[in-house]
Amino acid sequence: MSGLVVVSNRGPLSFRQDEDGRPVPAGSGGGLAGTLRPLLTGTDATWVASSMNEADRLAAEAGLMSGEGLDIVTITPDADVYRMAYDVVSNATLWFSHHYLFDLPRRPRFDRHWYEAWEAYRLLNEQFADAVAEVAPPGAVVLVQDYHLSLTGRMLAQRRRDLRTVHFHHTPFGDAHAMRVLPSAPAGELLAGLDGFGACGFHTARWAAAFTSCYDDAELAAFAGTNGRPRAFHAPLGPDPAAIVEEASSEAVASARAELDGVVGDRRLILRVDRVELSKNLLRGFWAFEELLETRPHWRGAVVLLALAYPSREGLADYLAYRSEVEHTAARINERWGTADWVPVVLDVADDRDRSVAALTRYDVLMVNPIRDGMNLVAKEGPLVNTHDGVVVLSREAGAWEELHPAAVGVNPFDVTGTAAALDLALTMDPAQRAQRADALREIVLGRTAADWLADLLAQAEQLPGSG
Amino acid sequence: MSGLVVVSNRGPLSFRQDEDGRPVPAGSGGGLAGTLRPLLTGTDATWVASSMNEADRLAAEAGLMSGEGLDIVTITPDADVYRMAYDVVSNATLWFSHHYLFDLPRRPRFDRHWYEAWEAYRLLNEQFADAVAEVAPPGAVVLVQDYHLSLTGRMLAQRRRDLRTVHFHHTPFGDAHAMRVLPSAPAGELLAGLDGFGACGFHTARWAAAFTSCYDDAELAAFAGTNGRPRAFHAPLGPDPAAIVEEASSEAVASARAELDGVVGDRRLILRVDRVELSKNLLRGFWAFEELLETRPHWRGAVVLLALAYPSREGLADYLAYRSEVEHTAARINERWGTADWVPVVLDVADDRDRSVAALTRYDVLMVNPIRDGMNLVAKEGPLVNTHDGVVVLSREAGAWEELHPAAVGVNPFDVTGTAAALDLALTMDPAQRAQRADALREIVLGRTAADWLADLLAQAEQLPGSG
Repeated sequence: MSGLVVVSNRGPLSFRQDEDGRPVPAGSGGGLAGTLRPLLTGTDATWVASSMNEADRLAAEAGLMSGEGLDIVTITPDADVYRMAYDVVSNATLWFSHHYLFDLPRRPRFDRHWYEAWEAYRLLNEQFADAVAEVAPPGAVVLVQDYHLSLTGRMLAQRRRDLRTVHFHHTPFGDAHAMRVLPSAPAGELLAGLDGFGACGFHTARWAAAFTSCYDDAELAAFAGTNGRPRAFHAPLGPDPAAIVEEASSEAVASARAELDGVVGDRRLILRVDRVELSKNLLRGFWAFEELLETRPHWRGAVVLLALAYPSREGLADYLAYRSEVEHTAARINERWGTADWVPVVLDVADDRDRSVAALTRYDVLMVNPIRDGMNLVAKEGPLVNTHDGVVVLSREAGAWEELHPAAVGVNPFDVTGTAAALDLALTMDPAQRAQRADALREIVLGRTAADWLADLLAQAEQLPGSG
Repeated sequence: MSGLVVVSNRGPLSFRQDEDGRPVPAGSGGGLAGTLRPLLTGTDATWVASSMNEADRLAAEAGLMSGEGLDIVTITPDADVYRMAYDVVSNATLWFSHHYLFDLPRRPRFDRHWYEAWEAYRLLNEQFADAVAEVAPPGAVVLVQDYHLSLTGRMLAQRRRDLRTVHFHHTPFGDAHAMRVLPSAPAGELLAGLDGFGACGFHTARWAAAFTSCYDDAELAAFAGTNGRPRAFHAPLGPDPAAIVEEASSEAVASARAELDGVVGDRRLILRVDRVELSKNLLRGFWAFEELLETRPHWRGAVVLLALAYPSREGLADYLAYRSEVEHTAARINERWGTADWVPVVLDVADDRDRSVAALTRYDVLMVNPIRDGMNLVAKEGPLVNTHDGVVVLSREAGAWEELHPAAVGVNPFDVTGTAAALDLALTMDPAQRAQRADALREIVLGRTAADWLADLLAQAEQLPGSG
């Protein structure tokens, strides 16, 4: 696939600086890049990404951004431009908008500082578009990932009409109301930018419909200068089953599992594994667990909620505040309900992948209750490695719901009482039904892998006109 | 119109207790009731409303809820039931939902206490439905007002199939996403309750479309048990022009105007008149004014922002917190920009109608920038009494925008920079254009009065099947 170019903000390799300031590998980029990298290794694809920090920049200069059969091209944006584009626009505006996270009476605040950040976002998108235009072979398929690069569609169309460009959002997409919250000219620019791609993909039909509906809003369409709906499709992403099963069988995971067994003992285990992220709904998860203890006294002392919640985006004040609320809520519940030999909520904010995988093998109930989530891969990874016929309590607002709903216990994530009832239902389900559901979940997840997702994107690209 | 029954939470008369605890009139109910009362006086209509406090209850018992050619029937709910239904469900849930005010990562919190409040809301709606079913003449037209009474449609349909019922929301209506935030069973009950009316009305086509779109969401429709869309219409409400013009010519207003002239002097006046209410967007109004001073230094010392903001719903913690933020923001701006002889922001939280009307006669710019608003009558009252060819800077998310947009200066209410630019544009507009726009606004408002609105509702009712 030498005609394939993948574009994402974060690249497949990331670096940190050692004591002497030299760049050394910091593991795989994780997240999206971690999923994509094994799929592309050896394909001779070109991957265009930005250096995210000083270590990445040094590594790129030293030629360390090379990769196993992957040609990695690194953008090196100005640090201030990058910070404004990434923190202010991508993470504090577009992420919030697509996930409905704004406290609208107070946030967002689109003032002149924000408009400067928008200029930076445009500039960063231009840098990406320039790099792609320079390196892409004639008629190449270009797969652009996520909300950081929304404007590159139109930019690429202007630079290289021969390319077949496909964008994919790993987030949900805000509807017309959410887009109307953005200042009108930037909202129009965003929609025009995405309209410039040959096609735009999403994890679910619901997000694709939210996206195309924005182009039906007369005011938004006027600012975008568009006429009609862009081409959209949905292609759900799944984990690589072999990789996670192999991971689960490692020594490190076995040792983490032994440690976990010591903590949980013969109690039932409700697990959640998330970033400390406003969309993940940690607070209502805790409140629901507390209502379970309050209203069903027989669970007191008999169940543990293990919350593996690794810190995220701590450069944003909102996330620091949220982490503090999460920690205080867990502590308050433990103070109120805990006993000498029972800690109701075990909150661990260390980023320890082995421990997470170990916990996934052991849960009785996996609680995945985001208020809105593009997909949520944890809901799919859990059933692949779990050995307890664990039940998945799943938010109907997670993208994964569209595939998993026949075998999961659904919750309205805002409904604390309903979530408590779902936890109770999951904990009391009879063994035969648990086994049946666990099998069904596994079957659904095995039926659709990351490779299928990539194949769908490539098939979309092949259908586009192009001179390749 | 002896066959007419009007139903609203707040009645046309309200009372307070004097020093001896006896109920004495506390003026007209204001707001909606204040608008409806003159329209209905002398029609022999029956008005069903609830007593909202102890004084109202005593007055009803003493037979003081009589009225000029109006038969007033008072419901006396249990105080706890009323508090839960009114504070928790109507104001802290449905109002928030229809105006998109929730900080979703944290609020709402639908726990078992909220479910108790929902029971109370249902009970209160049943009390209303029972009272209406008892007093309504055969085949009567029943006009039910606002979100407090959403469930009475189905209840009335079950009790009295002969009635022709029309509901009218004076708020916007949340779309399917907002309704999905509510717990599923209550959301379904709400939509089923409204579907029970013969027709549902809104101030704008946009709110009516948001309402009917909820019935297209498969999940919501399943919980509602509905099939297809209910009958919806839009009928914008306007002020009574004669009444406000008469009010503006009173002695009290003249004296308030003289006082105001002293405060403003020969400076330009930007005015806003609101309740201290999260949807009104006071904070961004102040931020925009500050950005105006920051970026256009010639306005420093030359313009005053008068914010008449009377307290609202101070029983809810959210409103107390918001009031405090509003006060601190005004104080901070005054500290930063004020001089010995210039206070940039004059914030007055007294509820003084004469002062408000006086200010409406005097503004150069009227700032009406709600993040979402059913209609906003201030935007229509201003042009009727203003004597300065004042410009209206109007949020595109206010219902009034649908009628006034040809002659107002539109703003995206979330866009602080855009709002600052709109204020500057309004302040610098040449006199001929100001006069032309002021005339156009007045003409639009005079073209559609409160009586037209009532006539539309009655016409909708007449089209319904009924045995009257």
